[in-house]
Amino acid sequence: MHSRFVLIQTSHAGNVGAVARAMKVMGFDDLVLVAPRWSNVLRREETIQRASGANDVLTKARIVDTLDEALDGMDHLCATAMTPRDFGPPTRAPREHFAALLGQSPEAPGAAPPNQPGGVAFLFGSERFGMRNEDVYRCHTCLSIPTDPHFGSLNLAAAVQLIAYDWRQALGGFALPPATARPAADAQALAGMLTHLEQALVAVDFLDPAAPKKLMPRLNQLFNRAAPTDEEIHILRGVAKAMLQMAEKAKR
Amino acid sequence: MHSRFVLIQTSHAGNVGAVARAMKVMGFDDLVLVAPRWSNVLRREETIQRASGANDVLTKARIVDTLDEALDGMDHLCATAMTPRDFGPPTRAPREHFAALLGQSPEAPGAAPPNQPGGVAFLFGSERFGMRNEDVYRCHTCLSIPTDPHFGSLNLAAAVQLIAYDWRQALGGFALPPATARPAADAQALAGMLTHLEQALVAVDFLDPAAPKKLMPRLNQLFNRAAPTDEEIHILRGVAKAMLQMAEKAKR
Repeated sequence: MHSRFVLIQTSHAGNVGAVARAMKVMGFDDLVLVAPRWSNVLRREETIQRASGANDVLTKARIVDTLDEALDGMDHLCATAMTPRDFGPPTRAPREHFAALLGQSPEAPGAAPPNQPGGVAFLFGSERFGMRNEDVYRCHTCLSIPTDPHFGSLNLAAAVQLIAYDWRQALGGFALPPATARPAADAQALAGMLTHLEQALVAVDFLDPAAPKKLMPRLNQLFNRAAPTDEEIHILRGVAKAMLQMAEKAKR
Repeated sequence: MHSRFVLIQTSHAGNVGAVARAMKVMGFDDLVLVAPRWSNVLRREETIQRASGANDVLTKARIVDTLDEALDGMDHLCATAMTPRDFGPPTRAPREHFAALLGQSPEAPGAAPPNQPGGVAFLFGSERFGMRNEDVYRCHTCLSIPTDPHFGSLNLAAAVQLIAYDWRQALGGFALPPATARPAADAQALAGMLTHLEQALVAVDFLDPAAPKKLMPRLNQLFNRAAPTDEEIHILRGVAKAMLQMAEKAKR
């Protein structure tokens, strides 16, 4: 699905650069600027600095005069606005709307079955005035990022970052970098280690076999929670072995 | 649950301001800076400008020399790092980890039942070097925001914004501003409007009653999808009425 980010009348060059970066980390690269304050905004120093390597997004970006020119090929338009407009499209939280749009959650009763759009555009108004009513009216939905009711002042690039993140997650997301697998050792290996440790604790005179209290069950629970790997079991047995050897040496 | 954001050796004042703003829009206000580059960073012009009104977060923020001093009262530590460390804590995506931490999803088999922590700290390393290994090792988990595998360069404030958002959502989220409720009219009201419209379409010679083709079923489907409100039904009946009146006038 084609995804486009449209910035309308943006004033700060730094924000344009930060938006390019925010899009690129989430794998999006179609940026259109409608009547930005600076006609050379894509080449300004502050823009390039804040883009921090997302230069291809800036190079590919288009500057147009009107919103109409920005919307070719798009068939689902998402406004972003903090305050709902009377007569405007329904206001929705991004996650909820994206799930419905992609047919991942039951639509509102009575609604048409979901037809996934071919092109989705996210529209962001100027830093100072937000979106004009006329621009909001033509959209299919108005996305509102749920913020503290007493402080809803989201930076433009921060808003793009959150929408790009939620949209990427809804589209299936990126995998995390290959994680170091950490399979826990089995119960038998853990029990073997505990027996070894118990001998060592007796040897160093910490555990009295005649009055063991509940030490070993406590340690068993502790290690159950920690769920050690085979390698960690090996380390712990090494510690037990060293304790036993030192105790033997001391008592020689 | 107490939530704290800890920035370690941050170099850019603008980022500190942007972080304060990112926290505040998600309703968080406990910020601690460990050995920032500028000792007066909380009062620098760029900081205050980028905080954009989140001044109370800056006023309340603490500057300390060591990570230890930043962690009083915290019992669950989340590192943030793009690359997992050998011997470090398990790497998790924020949403998945937060759900598990709050007991909202089944824990991994064999894990202990979730005990919700009293204080959760999110640790962010310096812009240039990220977190030191020693600092990552002491954490319970390493959060990794899923980004494009070819471009994972998240701005510091953008990373804070995403973590603060996911954490706030996991904690229950904020409500959207009161939406204009839009209850759809019932089927009878819709059918009445369609009958009225049909008469009007005949009157203006658009619909031939002798050869109606499938016009009315098509319009019926169109209005079913649009799910008009009572008010919109009223508008549409007004249109039909005006069409009927004008047709009568024309044929007089």
